Amino acid sequence: MKNVKYGQCIKCGKTYPATPDLTTCTCGGVLEIVYDYDEIKKRLTKAVLAERTERTMWRYRELLPIEETTEPTPLRVGWSPLYDEPRLAAQLGLKQLWVKDDGLNPTGALKDRASAMAVAKAREAGAGVIACSSTGNAASSLAGNAAAAGLATYIFVPSRAPKGKVAQLMTFGATVISVQGSYEETFELSRQAINRWGWYNRNAAINPYLSEGKKTVAYEILEQLGWQAPDYIAISVGDGCTIAGLWKGLKDLHAVGLIDRLPRLISAQAEGCCPINRAVVRGGSWEPMEENTFADSIAVGVPRNGDKALMAIRESQGLAVNVSDREIMEAQQLLGRSCGVFGEPAGVTAAAGVKKLCEQGILGREETVVSVVTGNGLKDVANAIKACGEPISIPGDMNALLRAFSDSGIVVE
Amino acid sequence: MKNVKYGQCIKCGKTYPATPDLTTCTCGGVLEIVYDYDEIKKRLTKAVLAERTERTMWRYRELLPIEETTEPTPLRVGWSPLYDEPRLAAQLGLKQLWVKDDGLNPTGALKDRASAMAVAKAREAGAGVIACSSTGNAASSLAGNAAAAGLATYIFVPSRAPKGKVAQLMTFGATVISVQGSYEETFELSRQAINRWGWYNRNAAINPYLSEGKKTVAYEILEQLGWQAPDYIAISVGDGCTIAGLWKGLKDLHAVGLIDRLPRLISAQAEGCCPINRAVVRGGSWEPMEENTFADSIAVGVPRNGDKALMAIRESQGLAVNVSDREIMEAQQLLGRSCGVFGEPAGVTAAAGVKKLCEQGILGREETVVSVVTGNGLKDVANAIKACGEPISIPGDMNALLRAFSDSGIVVE
Repeated sequence: MKNVKYGQCIKCGKTYPATPDLTTCTCGGVLEIVYDYDEIKKRLTKAVLAERTERTMWRYRELLPIEETTEPTPLRVGWSPLYDEPRLAAQLGLKQLWVKDDGLNPTGALKDRASAMAVAKAREAGAGVIACSSTGNAASSLAGNAAAAGLATYIFVPSRAPKGKVAQLMTFGATVISVQGSYEETFELSRQAINRWGWYNRNAAINPYLSEGKKTVAYEILEQLGWQAPDYIAISVGDGCTIAGLWKGLKDLHAVGLIDRLPRLISAQAEGCCPINRAVVRGGSWEPMEENTFADSIAVGVPRNGDKALMAIRESQGLAVNVSDREIMEAQQLLGRSCGVFGEPAGVTAAAGVKKLCEQGILGREETVVSVVTGNGLKDVANAIKACGEPISIPGDMNALLRAFSDSGIVVE
Repeated sequence: MKNVKYGQCIKCGKTYPATPDLTTCTCGGVLEIVYDYDEIKKRLTKAVLAERTERTMWRYRELLPIEETTEPTPLRVGWSPLYDEPRLAAQLGLKQLWVKDDGLNPTGALKDRASAMAVAKAREAGAGVIACSSTGNAASSLAGNAAAAGLATYIFVPSRAPKGKVAQLMTFGATVISVQGSYEETFELSRQAINRWGWYNRNAAINPYLSEGKKTVAYEILEQLGWQAPDYIAISVGDGCTIAGLWKGLKDLHAVGLIDRLPRLISAQAEGCCPINRAVVRGGSWEPMEENTFADSIAVGVPRNGDKALMAIRESQGLAVNVSDREIMEAQQLLGRSCGVFGEPAGVTAAAGVKKLCEQGILGREETVVSVVTGNGLKDVANAIKACGEPISIPGDMNALLRAFSDSGIVVE
């Protein structure tokens, strides 16, 4: 890869050749992929991008850690819509607000960006099998993207995994191993199996390429905004890989001269599980925390990319905001009603955070904000049912309808 | 609208000025929108389209029944991916097969195309409210697209409507009226309410503009194929509006010279509810049928656009194929495993039909086929759970894993 220099440990600084099966540093630290920006700068310009018809995450291949001969993966990952939301901006008291709906990715989540990258790298490594342990969007996106590419997947889930999620995995042809035990026991068995059979490892804590897939969300936001950086980009934070990828993407664009200033990050976590935001406020490194939130995709008490996430938030002079489950549910309704966007609870946590920061007067009429929706609401209909209350229920009779409207205070236009 | 001549009854031929609130003919017949193709031909060429950056259904506005000043609706509807599927084509014995995944529309269904059109026409009519009666994708797509445009919706559902679907509607801010009665009673109350309050009517049987939104799926398929028509396009058929729209789109392209031959249609219905396909086989007009299928989005025993659908299938010298619920479930697994595409049961019925026609030797090595997926599998996870069986369940122990693989006949690569 001409554009990549090496992988470098974020803890001890040691460097490694960027082979497709790169994992962690011998010191245990996570690796980061380091690029040759001077070289990339010569080839990747706004004009070159404006001519390009590819409208997926692979549009930005000069900035991605893949060989020049590597084909885009089959599913259409990325280039999700960025919606300008003037009505919601006015309601919240912001100068301008955009919503990036990454729930419209092929398996319904931003995680498709990381899984597509894993598939591309597994192909480069000559692997026929990819494995991971997860119950959530990482697993379904891996299963879907691998199936489309003709790769087999082995996915380890704890036995408490919801049946619907397991069904999606199995529909994509994954071999699903349901482990009668905790998530830690599940992870440990997957580790042993991956070592034993040499499967390609899709694990955001171990594989440094995955956040390189996620960073494409930053490229798209900025290109969709005509390379005018917003003041803030808000995103929900679980294990930290996504916000770290977002920041890497922004820094890439700055390094190659496509943007001239960096937005600040807004890290939104659930009150009941906010180890990264707690460290932002208190200073120092993060400490494990309990996982008390219904927003399952960000209920991560031991964030495996916590260090990278903290570096990102601090470097960007970012804001940390925690929201309650109730505020998340309200944000789901707010985005639905105002924007026609249906996000899963973790997916709308960023919007809940933006709303709260507006109410606290921290964001206001001077600020422009992008809020990223990271997952589709159809992934978790059960919680939407709890959030939205009951419909009007009546017999099929006009007088009953008139009475019901009157009782509910509905004045028909 | 300079490009539209008038609305014309498909039964008696009577014409009507194409006002935004056009409904049915005085004779009861459904209207069709008639265009001035000679005029359109001058302006819409392959070169003009190739230059256009809009990648939604509104890309084709010269062929759409909207005023020149009408803005595209806010959500990104259309321009869904068309995937080339060489491995599945080989498995089925086809020359070439593509899958068009319309489940990646904003609310997860092809119906978004019709609802976005309804929103555009409601705005032209100066309406602030749109209404319909439906329990399915028509309702959720209307609620989502209207919310994004700042329009209110009133949606009437029978009380048996699944809670998850009602929750999606309410998340989009729709006023949902749950009617304690049959679908017919629900429809009747909605009719009275629409008449009383003058709401804009989103009902595919009454509003002739909706199939004009759906026809954009044909434009995209052909443009994505570089204007080379496939031999067949397969689609699932419920009330008939979608296949009629698809055919209208193909004929439009032929009329303005963008394609030089017309594909044949494949109408796929469920064995337990196939009034339109039965009429194709028997000749004559369609007769009502019971609704015995789990593919709820096409369980339509009294197809309200049955006449238009029959005309389309016959004009195209199309094929009619019925599939069992088991065959639909198998097709869901097949598309998931082979293509990484997760469709709802009605959404994969076309693929089930194509597979069956291959097995029967009606389609084979000479034929190129596009199969349209009309809805996202996340809309109906309950049925996917039934289709996919149980995962391997073991304690967190390597010996248990080895035994389980051996017992299941899994040979790890």
